[in-house]
Amino acid sequence: MFSGLSAFPLTPLRDDQVDLAAYRGLIDRLVAARVDSIGALGSTGSYAYLDRAERRAVVEASVDRAAGIPVIAGIGALRTSQVLALAEDAQQAGADAVLLAPMSYQALTQDDVAALYEDVTAELSVPLVVYDNPATTHVTFSMDLYAHIANLPHVDAIKIPPITQGVDAARERVRAMRAVIPEHVRIGISGDGFAASGLLAGCDAWFTAVGGTIPQAMSAIARSALDGRADDALAASARLAPLWDLVAQLGSLRVSAALAEHLALVDAPCLPRPLLGLRGAERERAVAVADQLGLLS
Amino acid sequence: MFSGLSAFPLTPLRDDQVDLAAYRGLIDRLVAARVDSIGALGSTGSYAYLDRAERRAVVEASVDRAAGIPVIAGIGALRTSQVLALAEDAQQAGADAVLLAPMSYQALTQDDVAALYEDVTAELSVPLVVYDNPATTHVTFSMDLYAHIANLPHVDAIKIPPITQGVDAARERVRAMRAVIPEHVRIGISGDGFAASGLLAGCDAWFTAVGGTIPQAMSAIARSALDGRADDALAASARLAPLWDLVAQLGSLRVSAALAEHLALVDAPCLPRPLLGLRGAERERAVAVADQLGLLS
Repeated sequence: MFSGLSAFPLTPLRDDQVDLAAYRGLIDRLVAARVDSIGALGSTGSYAYLDRAERRAVVEASVDRAAGIPVIAGIGALRTSQVLALAEDAQQAGADAVLLAPMSYQALTQDDVAALYEDVTAELSVPLVVYDNPATTHVTFSMDLYAHIANLPHVDAIKIPPITQGVDAARERVRAMRAVIPEHVRIGISGDGFAASGLLAGCDAWFTAVGGTIPQAMSAIARSALDGRADDALAASARLAPLWDLVAQLGSLRVSAALAEHLALVDAPCLPRPLLGLRGAERERAVAVADQLGLLS
Repeated sequence: MFSGLSAFPLTPLRDDQVDLAAYRGLIDRLVAARVDSIGALGSTGSYAYLDRAERRAVVEASVDRAAGIPVIAGIGALRTSQVLALAEDAQQAGADAVLLAPMSYQALTQDDVAALYEDVTAELSVPLVVYDNPATTHVTFSMDLYAHIANLPHVDAIKIPPITQGVDAARERVRAMRAVIPEHVRIGISGDGFAASGLLAGCDAWFTAVGGTIPQAMSAIARSALDGRADDALAASARLAPLWDLVAQLGSLRVSAALAEHLALVDAPCLPRPLLGLRGAERERAVAVADQLGLLS
């Protein structure tokens, strides 16, 4: 379940309500692209902004529509008891695994983060993906913390942040992690522009944000990398450099939302306020870049 | 309402439920210390971790117990529609003003932050305090953003982060802000260890975190500063240097919680998990420092 391409769709809103009809359409695209797993309610799925009932409905819709593709459901929240309730909901709704980032308001200590995963894994029945995303959580995982958490029951994968310095640096990072985590724990790379090198460096999975909206191009890169066709994978990723520049500047969520809106997969604006999404020249640029790369057909 | 000492009590939990009885006791201490306003559900009051019903109950208890002292209620949340609901609840519960920080998960643009305050102030009936707390929100307010928001209806005060470089730097900062915000908008300083210099530099108010638990010592410093007795204020603050060092290292929330637990004002542990609070040697040190400074009597 934690190998290959895992695609994270948007959770589109319409008049501040989750648009489940549009959401189902996004899932259908992922099924058609034959992704290896679907990440419902990731950061790209705006999990942090949605209430418990909304999140339950999204997991149910995901499972219902995934055509047997495993569904990984985000269960992050600021308070441990909220996470436990969301974990229970996700499991009852049929999620195959859960994904947990240590959301923070007050800065978390390494002990706080460890306790969060201890508390949650003690109650789980399905596998858990540790979601290390410092850009949104402002938590930095030390190697000691990886090691501690990876040894907890039900922890089967770790989603790591992008490694931006190339394949060799990624290989070194993966090697260092593998030295401290159990052998069965999978490592998944994030940061779409650096995913090809991450997979070539030995990551088991690619958790794709942009691929939640435009899965085909990401799937092609992933297949090349996972088949060991390194030159093809790197070339296919390099061809999308203007997209990666866009994502680096404007954020993968805002770019994904702009493309989904342009493609009329979702109503505009689809993001939860106060996130305004891309407007004006930024939006035009995002669409133009994707169009020139042939990603909108 | 936005001048003098504004004290922010903890919202103590007990078995993951808000302990309203203990909370009322904390309010009573603030009333006895004759603070100028009470900040319910600030960062020290763990607003970000509490659900809507809990937050409504806390505002009701605050208003009920404040003996006429103005109550400022935190209404921050990640999604604008959640903030609007919390604002409505706070007003119905009798809050005299609301306090709004731009909580973030996805990084907010300056336009996102502006839109948040536009959306909320358009619906408000009571004054609003803009809560600029980059340590928890990861938002940096530009001077242009201060100017834009301060000109919105109902915006009557801005709570600014600590200015750590002394009175002259604080005076310069306050001067720069006053040049761009309307005359009626008050400026309140945060960061208890730098509050004396902030008040002496011309801030109207001191929003105190530690003073939510131990108000008397903070009240004495505030009175000196607001009466223009600069040397007395700075000396009284300097005398508490070991406390400020503790807060700088361990955080005002964790220090406040440890002191409240030690004083048996609240049950231990009183913070929402995953925040573990201070334990072991850190906790002993916090209590010893406060004791040596005579703050526990």
